[in-house]
Amino acid sequence: MEAYPMNGGNGPTSYSHNSSLQGKGIMAIKAMIDEAIRDHVDIKHLSSWNPYHIADLGCSVGPNTFLAVKHIIQALELKCSSEGIDSSKQPEFQVFFNDHVSNDFNTLFASPRFGKGRYFAAGVPGSFHGRLFPKASLHFLHSSYTLHWLSQVPRAVRDVKSPAWKRGRIGGLYGAPEVVAAYAAQFESDMDCFLRGRAQELVPGGLMALTLPFNGGWTDVDQPVFIRLFGLLDATLLDMVCTGRLDEDTVDSFNLPIHLPLSKEFEMLVKRNGYFSVEMIQPLPSSPKTSIAFDARLCCMHIRAPLEGIMRKHFGAEIVDEIFERLRYKVEESSYAFSKNMGARQDLFVLLKRLP
Amino acid sequence: MEAYPMNGGNGPTSYSHNSSLQGKGIMAIKAMIDEAIRDHVDIKHLSSWNPYHIADLGCSVGPNTFLAVKHIIQALELKCSSEGIDSSKQPEFQVFFNDHVSNDFNTLFASPRFGKGRYFAAGVPGSFHGRLFPKASLHFLHSSYTLHWLSQVPRAVRDVKSPAWKRGRIGGLYGAPEVVAAYAAQFESDMDCFLRGRAQELVPGGLMALTLPFNGGWTDVDQPVFIRLFGLLDATLLDMVCTGRLDEDTVDSFNLPIHLPLSKEFEMLVKRNGYFSVEMIQPLPSSPKTSIAFDARLCCMHIRAPLEGIMRKHFGAEIVDEIFERLRYKVEESSYAFSKNMGARQDLFVLLKRLP
Repeated sequence: MEAYPMNGGNGPTSYSHNSSLQGKGIMAIKAMIDEAIRDHVDIKHLSSWNPYHIADLGCSVGPNTFLAVKHIIQALELKCSSEGIDSSKQPEFQVFFNDHVSNDFNTLFASPRFGKGRYFAAGVPGSFHGRLFPKASLHFLHSSYTLHWLSQVPRAVRDVKSPAWKRGRIGGLYGAPEVVAAYAAQFESDMDCFLRGRAQELVPGGLMALTLPFNGGWTDVDQPVFIRLFGLLDATLLDMVCTGRLDEDTVDSFNLPIHLPLSKEFEMLVKRNGYFSVEMIQPLPSSPKTSIAFDARLCCMHIRAPLEGIMRKHFGAEIVDEIFERLRYKVEESSYAFSKNMGARQDLFVLLKRLP
Repeated sequence: MEAYPMNGGNGPTSYSHNSSLQGKGIMAIKAMIDEAIRDHVDIKHLSSWNPYHIADLGCSVGPNTFLAVKHIIQALELKCSSEGIDSSKQPEFQVFFNDHVSNDFNTLFASPRFGKGRYFAAGVPGSFHGRLFPKASLHFLHSSYTLHWLSQVPRAVRDVKSPAWKRGRIGGLYGAPEVVAAYAAQFESDMDCFLRGRAQELVPGGLMALTLPFNGGWTDVDQPVFIRLFGLLDATLLDMVCTGRLDEDTVDSFNLPIHLPLSKEFEMLVKRNGYFSVEMIQPLPSSPKTSIAFDARLCCMHIRAPLEGIMRKHFGAEIVDEIFERLRYKVEESSYAFSKNMGARQDLFVLLKRLP
């Protein structure tokens, strides 16, 4: 199993400074979190589960995680007060911030926003593909933009002799049916692992709010920003093979451990796993197009922050600047296509409830 | 309030590599932890508190914290099995590792020993002079070599106009009665803060095992290692004033936020606070003299790891190597006095129980 933490620290290429697009997603799910907590949290639980344990899985170091936690607690407090539980009887909250062991927890903990709010904070290092918490010890679980990261690149895709070994294209977002199938199988296995772990950790009736980029069956015309960025990164790497800046084998063997499931596919995996009911599953609403201005540099920084670690390891640290510089030119060339679709929906919101 | 974390990382001057003397203390308290858990943990609690929450306050980054947690869990498991609770009915353990926000948690989490054992691990950054956990959420609390660190140097000692302002000597280990009184008052206030916070966080019947260096009323002849080291550090700084390497005012204004209480003094503070009963209070047994060989370099590294941060800030980073080099000469000169007393007891073990 491999770990792919976001860029640490507070520098110009850090995830902390380059996660505002993910942050917009988190703002967009605020309304869904509100709805989820209003309609699906049992008020009996809120008055008896004390302390009330919340976990954010894949918190990284950035500001988004604090925003998500703030929304969850505000919605829980609103639920309490609207049901007549006065503040002296409301539960105390303890929030567990989880990410890979190699995540930059020092930066997370030193953030002025860490632990600020009506809650006690803890960090939990480790992979959510394994167990992280004691049995039945969590009440509400949140995870945003994490489940599309696979625990590893599917073995078949890494095997030159396999029909799923692929040339040129990165990841399983598109490509030969064998490649797509290998990625889907890895996702299925990872999700089953994830759901079985969480089924142990959540109390019966506990909720899990997930947001992840999904495969909306887009055409070239209506591709959301991140999908288009991946396509251009692909093209950039192929250009660099043509001009001799990168070796063909090195590019062929570069695979991102990312899978975007179809909404139906995700729902089916949850049902097959059997521990959770699907309470809500819907794409995040599109942002009004006018609200997000297109900025090629910002877009590139946003794909760089999560991918830089993997790319340094595979291509070598010295070439990474050049790859992203070339990507920026390509993004600028496509600015019309990007700006037309800046607000396009690309994320799925899912609310699961632990069955009794 | 100020934070004084130990030296981070894994380098030659890190606390992680220079805490074996503290580690010997933790080995010495193993027998006391065993006794505390055997005689003072209520078996009803062990079968109903699930998950069972343990916290280590002031964990730093070193190996000692893992050893202490291992001993506690082994003793709890032994208690379970000796009382006929079979392993399927034993509680799951969750351990919270706490230290200052500026502690090097990245190194702690990356340690191969972190979270290794039958427990789930979390990090909790923050000062134990404030609240860290929800109400009544902890069952067993451990803290070693932390409580002698004050939240700040007493104000009176920092005030040139106060009769407690002191010349020359560092800390309140010795000096004019006003200095000693100012340190004792700060310790009293910090302990009251600490105990009130923990009284909120521990369940009634929950235990707190504390080890701290204490003031045994030693003479020059029977001084334990650390006390003697502080005296020589004092002398080193005064030498450096005489030879013009350090400014007199800079040395006069250097104060360590450390207080070693008398055993009686500590017991009295707990009683006055009123939330805990004192179940055990006794000095750690002396080690057999033959078991610890004297090593001047090792001794100096052991005092450097915890003090370097404060000393860099006060004297400037460039002079710190020289101070510790000079200290080493002095320690070597005193090697006879040191080696005679290597195993002398200097630590107090205290077991407190949260009153109902």
